Amino acid sequence: MTHLPVLLEVQDLAGALEWLETQPAYSIADEIARMDAVESVITFRLLDKDRALEVFEELDPVDQQQILEGLRDQAFGDLVEGMDPDDRARMLGEVPAKVARRVLAGLSAHERHMTAALLGYPEGSVGRYMTPETVALQQNLTVSQALEVVRRRGANAETIYTLPVVDTGRRLTGIVELRELVLSDPDRHVAELVVTEPPSARATEPAEDAARLMRETNVLDLPVVDSEDRLVGLLTIDDAVEVIEAADTEDVARQSGAEPLERHYMSAGVFEVSRKRVVWLMLLLVAATLTVSVTQAFEDELATVTQLALFIPLLIGTGGNSGAQAATAAVRALAVGEVRTSDLLRVIWRECRTGLLLGAMLAVLGLLVGALFVGWKIAVVVAITLVVICMWAATVGGTMPLLAKKLKIDPAVVSAPMVTTLVDATGLIIYFTTAKIVLGI
Amino acid sequence: MTHLPVLLEVQDLAGALEWLETQPAYSIADEIARMDAVESVITFRLLDKDRALEVFEELDPVDQQQILEGLRDQAFGDLVEGMDPDDRARMLGEVPAKVARRVLAGLSAHERHMTAALLGYPEGSVGRYMTPETVALQQNLTVSQALEVVRRRGANAETIYTLPVVDTGRRLTGIVELRELVLSDPDRHVAELVVTEPPSARATEPAEDAARLMRETNVLDLPVVDSEDRLVGLLTIDDAVEVIEAADTEDVARQSGAEPLERHYMSAGVFEVSRKRVVWLMLLLVAATLTVSVTQAFEDELATVTQLALFIPLLIGTGGNSGAQAATAAVRALAVGEVRTSDLLRVIWRECRTGLLLGAMLAVLGLLVGALFVGWKIAVVVAITLVVICMWAATVGGTMPLLAKKLKIDPAVVSAPMVTTLVDATGLIIYFTTAKIVLGI
Repeated sequence: MTHLPVLLEVQDLAGALEWLETQPAYSIADEIARMDAVESVITFRLLDKDRALEVFEELDPVDQQQILEGLRDQAFGDLVEGMDPDDRARMLGEVPAKVARRVLAGLSAHERHMTAALLGYPEGSVGRYMTPETVALQQNLTVSQALEVVRRRGANAETIYTLPVVDTGRRLTGIVELRELVLSDPDRHVAELVVTEPPSARATEPAEDAARLMRETNVLDLPVVDSEDRLVGLLTIDDAVEVIEAADTEDVARQSGAEPLERHYMSAGVFEVSRKRVVWLMLLLVAATLTVSVTQAFEDELATVTQLALFIPLLIGTGGNSGAQAATAAVRALAVGEVRTSDLLRVIWRECRTGLLLGAMLAVLGLLVGALFVGWKIAVVVAITLVVICMWAATVGGTMPLLAKKLKIDPAVVSAPMVTTLVDATGLIIYFTTAKIVLGI
Repeated sequence: MTHLPVLLEVQDLAGALEWLETQPAYSIADEIARMDAVESVITFRLLDKDRALEVFEELDPVDQQQILEGLRDQAFGDLVEGMDPDDRARMLGEVPAKVARRVLAGLSAHERHMTAALLGYPEGSVGRYMTPETVALQQNLTVSQALEVVRRRGANAETIYTLPVVDTGRRLTGIVELRELVLSDPDRHVAELVVTEPPSARATEPAEDAARLMRETNVLDLPVVDSEDRLVGLLTIDDAVEVIEAADTEDVARQSGAEPLERHYMSAGVFEVSRKRVVWLMLLLVAATLTVSVTQAFEDELATVTQLALFIPLLIGTGGNSGAQAATAAVRALAVGEVRTSDLLRVIWRECRTGLLLGAMLAVLGLLVGALFVGWKIAVVVAITLVVICMWAATVGGTMPLLAKKLKIDPAVVSAPMVTTLVDATGLIIYFTTAKIVLGI
């Protein structure tokens, strides 16, 4: 099947319309995310109303904004009114104030109220992602009464599979799964089916923590409460998966010393991509001047035995790799909850021994390489340096993410390049000092 | 509250029992995953039967195996019989043949059949993760008849929220959500509520692809079919989330030049961790001998202007960082489906310009640093080298993951350290050649 951009390029309108009718919403959203502003609005106008809403909800906030800016008021209003309140709140949190005002002005009072409620929560908090439209039950209902409540009020709710149970003060006391209601005798009481003390989250806590909790506890929806344990919404699994994916993307980017892109990789411009990367590169370059100072301090030794320069890239490269492995493992283990900051000493002890073992194995290889290129004496220096550098790099790499977390800094920011740059400078000191001792210069 | 390991250490049995009774299953599983073999079996025996099964299902296959090996036959049988067939199959896929035989022998004929069916699918495929126990409907039912089928057959199914609709040949024709059945008039027909052509997956395709499709399409359960489109199971969202998390962990590890651990970070031994890291470190060290050769080839120039050695770590470090950023962004964009291999030329063009822009900005900084340490002449060499290295590194980093994917290699294997090492050697050539030209040596 011909691809949409090709159809648009050759102005094959009938072909494009057919393509849009036969493709699922997420495929269309995927194509739109890859387009520039004009193309995306054109494509969007080709969709009929219901379908447009489906596609719109699949788009990232930045792309949504692009399309909103290109629509006339009527189409604009229809689109925004149809979105789920949590999706709308998330979009509003990221669009310029001008667009946000236009959006809120076009909503019905009820819809505006729900969106505004969500917007009161800090960015990245559970409140921004939850759906406020839930079907809450009282404990004293029978199963058939409860099902009647679900039938009456369920059409507006984003999910009816998890039904929070609340007391008269709307405080969360448990949950009932729709599954239990459907499979139970209609005369039983909801009280018998309630799961008390279900996993739940505060609306103000980070959405990532809540999403990871959902993954650990295998629940479909997480009840969200305010500071007085009153039910305010549900975090649904599809939003949780999105939160986890975004958090992982951010971690991955930060670990390579870049900030995550806010939009699709293919539609982000060269300037935007550069902006996300340049700050770290500059900082790391400045940090790397340490290596210049260190090498300069040993310039005499280097002039005496020029061959020492041959192994500088290999040694600091290996130290960097070893440090990056440990840092990456620690960041991931923190992210998925396998390591806590209280494990600091155990992590230091583990990585120190791991580094020693790795260094010893690499030293054998280093000895051979060194002997092959420049003879045994310098080879011994290279081998000893490898052991010490690996031990040092693994320990630093494993420790820094935990320290960062203790200091409330995102551990992923203590990225592999940052550890690498730090280890580069100290590695050179280790190398030249070893050389001075072994070679007697 | 005192932590479990502490309670065990001081032999406070009553305290430990109370802790185990009050904690949720996933917290207990988390503690067990951090213990050694003896501690974990002791803890496990303290749990009552139902709770033991809950906790057991939360554990990773490696930890499950450890516990199974410590249990007597009765407890063993109870535990295994209680597991979901897909969890059991996944565990069997990873335990030694001896344990696997013991597991299969202890099962009822029906359970053995279901597990064996799952085991027929290749490792990492959808078939290994799906649940074979579904409630399938026929299209000609009314809503109330359909709900009756769900009530009669739903108790054994892992999920009843997605109800696959099949024809008389058990071929998948659509799905109905339980939500629709519950909210609809009981006299309507299922046919009116069916979503036709729902997203679905083949049992033999990679589970990661299916899981990402679920994330994109926001479905709770994905129907799984065989090569003739007959329904064979459902992939549920909790399993999909687990698949995505494992795939991301693997990507992250590989991008730092290590293989992912099969078990909990804190319980994996030093030897196991080293084994996962040493192969890449060795390969990279061997690759790094290229840098030794390159530097050796320019030994005369280096002896003439020793100060050139000062900037080696800074230059190859910056090249490595720039390459790692591009490689990481490309691997992630491939993983979440934002980039396809057919985008190769566009990615090359983008990264090439991004690298040029970044290099130009860094060159200004490099000029200052160079002038500060050694004077303008070498500073100009450093600046020019930065521009060329950044452009080259970003292009190589962005391109290699796509090429790897084309060659059916995991793009994450084209890890940041691999790109870095490659760029190190070529970067040195760029540096020394620039120096020869500018300085006239």
